[in-house]
Amino acid sequence: MTSDPAIGQAFLDRVRERLPGLRLLVDPLEREAHRRDETAYLVPGLPLAVALPSTTAEVAELVRLAAEHRVPVVARGAGTGLSGGAAGIEGGLTIAFTRMNRILEIDRENLVAVVQPGIVNAILKAAVAEYGLFYPPDPASYEQCTIGGNLGTNAGGLCCVKYGQTRDSVLGLEVVLADGTVLRTGGRNIKDVAGYALTQLFVGSQGTLGLITEATLRLRPAPPPRSTLLAFFGTLEAAGAAVSGMTAAGLGPVTLELMDRVTIAAVDDWHHLGLDREAAAMLMVESDLPGAGATDELDGAQAACQTAGATLVVRAADAAEADWLRQGRRMAYHALERLGVARMEDVGVPRSRIPEVLRAIEAIGERYGVTIGTFGHAGDGNLHPTFVFERDDPTAEATTEAARGDLYRAAIALGGTVTAEHGVGVVRRDYLIEQVGPDAVRVMRAIKAALDPLGILNPGRVLPPA
Amino acid sequence: MTSDPAIGQAFLDRVRERLPGLRLLVDPLEREAHRRDETAYLVPGLPLAVALPSTTAEVAELVRLAAEHRVPVVARGAGTGLSGGAAGIEGGLTIAFTRMNRILEIDRENLVAVVQPGIVNAILKAAVAEYGLFYPPDPASYEQCTIGGNLGTNAGGLCCVKYGQTRDSVLGLEVVLADGTVLRTGGRNIKDVAGYALTQLFVGSQGTLGLITEATLRLRPAPPPRSTLLAFFGTLEAAGAAVSGMTAAGLGPVTLELMDRVTIAAVDDWHHLGLDREAAAMLMVESDLPGAGATDELDGAQAACQTAGATLVVRAADAAEADWLRQGRRMAYHALERLGVARMEDVGVPRSRIPEVLRAIEAIGERYGVTIGTFGHAGDGNLHPTFVFERDDPTAEATTEAARGDLYRAAIALGGTVTAEHGVGVVRRDYLIEQVGPDAVRVMRAIKAALDPLGILNPGRVLPPA
Repeated sequence: MTSDPAIGQAFLDRVRERLPGLRLLVDPLEREAHRRDETAYLVPGLPLAVALPSTTAEVAELVRLAAEHRVPVVARGAGTGLSGGAAGIEGGLTIAFTRMNRILEIDRENLVAVVQPGIVNAILKAAVAEYGLFYPPDPASYEQCTIGGNLGTNAGGLCCVKYGQTRDSVLGLEVVLADGTVLRTGGRNIKDVAGYALTQLFVGSQGTLGLITEATLRLRPAPPPRSTLLAFFGTLEAAGAAVSGMTAAGLGPVTLELMDRVTIAAVDDWHHLGLDREAAAMLMVESDLPGAGATDELDGAQAACQTAGATLVVRAADAAEADWLRQGRRMAYHALERLGVARMEDVGVPRSRIPEVLRAIEAIGERYGVTIGTFGHAGDGNLHPTFVFERDDPTAEATTEAARGDLYRAAIALGGTVTAEHGVGVVRRDYLIEQVGPDAVRVMRAIKAALDPLGILNPGRVLPPA
Repeated sequence: MTSDPAIGQAFLDRVRERLPGLRLLVDPLEREAHRRDETAYLVPGLPLAVALPSTTAEVAELVRLAAEHRVPVVARGAGTGLSGGAAGIEGGLTIAFTRMNRILEIDRENLVAVVQPGIVNAILKAAVAEYGLFYPPDPASYEQCTIGGNLGTNAGGLCCVKYGQTRDSVLGLEVVLADGTVLRTGGRNIKDVAGYALTQLFVGSQGTLGLITEATLRLRPAPPPRSTLLAFFGTLEAAGAAVSGMTAAGLGPVTLELMDRVTIAAVDDWHHLGLDREAAAMLMVESDLPGAGATDELDGAQAACQTAGATLVVRAADAAEADWLRQGRRMAYHALERLGVARMEDVGVPRSRIPEVLRAIEAIGERYGVTIGTFGHAGDGNLHPTFVFERDDPTAEATTEAARGDLYRAAIALGGTVTAEHGVGVVRRDYLIEQVGPDAVRVMRAIKAALDPLGILNPGRVLPPA
């Protein structure tokens, strides 16, 4: 792989010749706008050019030409990623799916939507809601992020504790392979065991095995509006105990979110929700069961919180208040960003280890003298410890590097993961082997080499350079 | 790959030398007992030997030696498969996991069980039930089949319409690779996007990519006992319309099963359940919602059935009657086997196409003059048309071959699959390309070659010979 300007120029000439109608950005400012994602302190490469295809055929031709010229290809959605997976590669072609943003079909009978990758998650949600349907995956950035990016990272979100991650909602894909072949996997069958799990494999591979150009997504009947409970605790351990108590009681809430003291204050300063700022932690629990089920479920959650020593439990008065509280939680990261530069992490642990990982995060904050706001999806063991630095802190980048290493090692030591929903991308690739071991990395490399023998698809992402 | 007796003998000598404590069956009668699975009219090869390892280390050594001698390796559970995936290969080594049948841990806090592959599904279910927990996947053969076989085929069953197939309940695996390396994937994290979806890839690969020697399975809190409804219909179309009506009404029952007239009669002859034998079709609908939810859900199902023109709707009086009815459904295949030789198929279609595939099945029965009993998981579009022949019918095998080809083509034409939960194995491998296309087969072959370059793992299964 090279960033030789002559090769780049020859490639672009050929692209213009073969695809005269393609929107191709080569202006330095426009390329600069596609350099980064939202990962603080990551400075990725500047793309050679940014292509905005409007058809799968254009994507296939772009990949064929990139293969011919050995130009790296990066797939990009809205650029809201937090792993550098869709960030620029110096001398590479970024394919931004902004213009391939249509809903091709909503199949009410089969509870399926067929979409292009550039569709924004919230727009899809709203469109299917008009049919009384529901597309569950909901990253906090759902009003900006695209389904293509969600597929690339196997994104999660607030309700995946009940409805699973993006992979659980995918029935089929159209994928442009490394040689430009257009592959279709799966379809509209709920169950299908004909051959290997290609659909599952492409989801979460961050554009390193193929470029997803269409997806057949599974929908559900829209559940009733949610009922919402907030519980505040004097210690993080007590909040952790409440989560365990709910698991033990067999509850399956649609949301089970945690915020620590730093996050509560940041969210409340911005949104004035009237949260208890003295609390060490807050849990948000939601139910979308029909009828009396929701009240029963929240009664059970309240009992678990009180048994664990909650200092205050409140329920949202109505759907509007619940929406407002949920929006507050969704904006936790941006609330922390108002305090300075915020670098969000994404560790996961087996659910029983949440108190331990919370203690480890506190210790890391003390060790490095850094403010950490922690929030996340307590119900499935996924937390987002977020390092917050003053904007002009010259030590911030080095501190982040050291502190996140400690964080990853702490998660791995607890049987956890360095990334539960954001992806390895480029920023966590050097920790992949520590988590999964050399044999798993070897198998992943073998699969990568089998599907992308020239190594042109998002090289250096997910897998560390050999 | 060869079945040269000298190579086989050298291999066995080496196995005995390296693994003197291994239970190794070489007696022709014992080998014969491991030739077939339950696929009628399939005559697979006779294994060279059958190994019954008790540790992962023994499995790894067996695979290493098999690789050295280029001896094919077949992984086998209880032999209840319906695709020939675990049937013998002439001159190959069958590794039967009968003795690796322990539950290694039930982790109540994390809702996880760690098991060896030889554990019988029903034994695992019973063991976790003592902790108030539930392992959902439930093939009709759950009292015989093993978790290892379930993992190999990504098995489904009666409640996967609500809780998913086996893959949806797997968090991590231990796998012996083609070179004898012992790989671990995943763990106890509900969410984990570190690297490619290896766990998902191994599940459903029928021992062609690796041999699963341990699995970390996801459990759920045990739901309440089920409430059960039976509805009878004058036509198959009416039953199909009732299924669509339930989907449209947003119902999510835990069971939504269909039986046609032939199956109703066969089950009733055997079990004397008092079913309506005049009906063209019966639906069994179950709810495991808590509290009043179950009654509400079955009320909704009943309304959908009546709107679709059900001739009779009855509800089980109590849990014992419900169990009895469910057991009747589970035994549908064996009830048909009492009529003669039964060859069960496993097509799936998008849910809206159920009436069409039912019509196609009827037409195939008429075309070939063969009795077909159809039953299956209507809620997710998966039907088991079962050809029934008299035991001494000399044309049966040829008729099966022709009729099932028509069946597969009908399913594919409806956007369906030739196998929804039983696996491609050997019997459906020549139809894989018709369903998924040459590009998908090429990608699957590339993955197979990457993980098993010598082609010793269950060769000729899933993928047709190149």
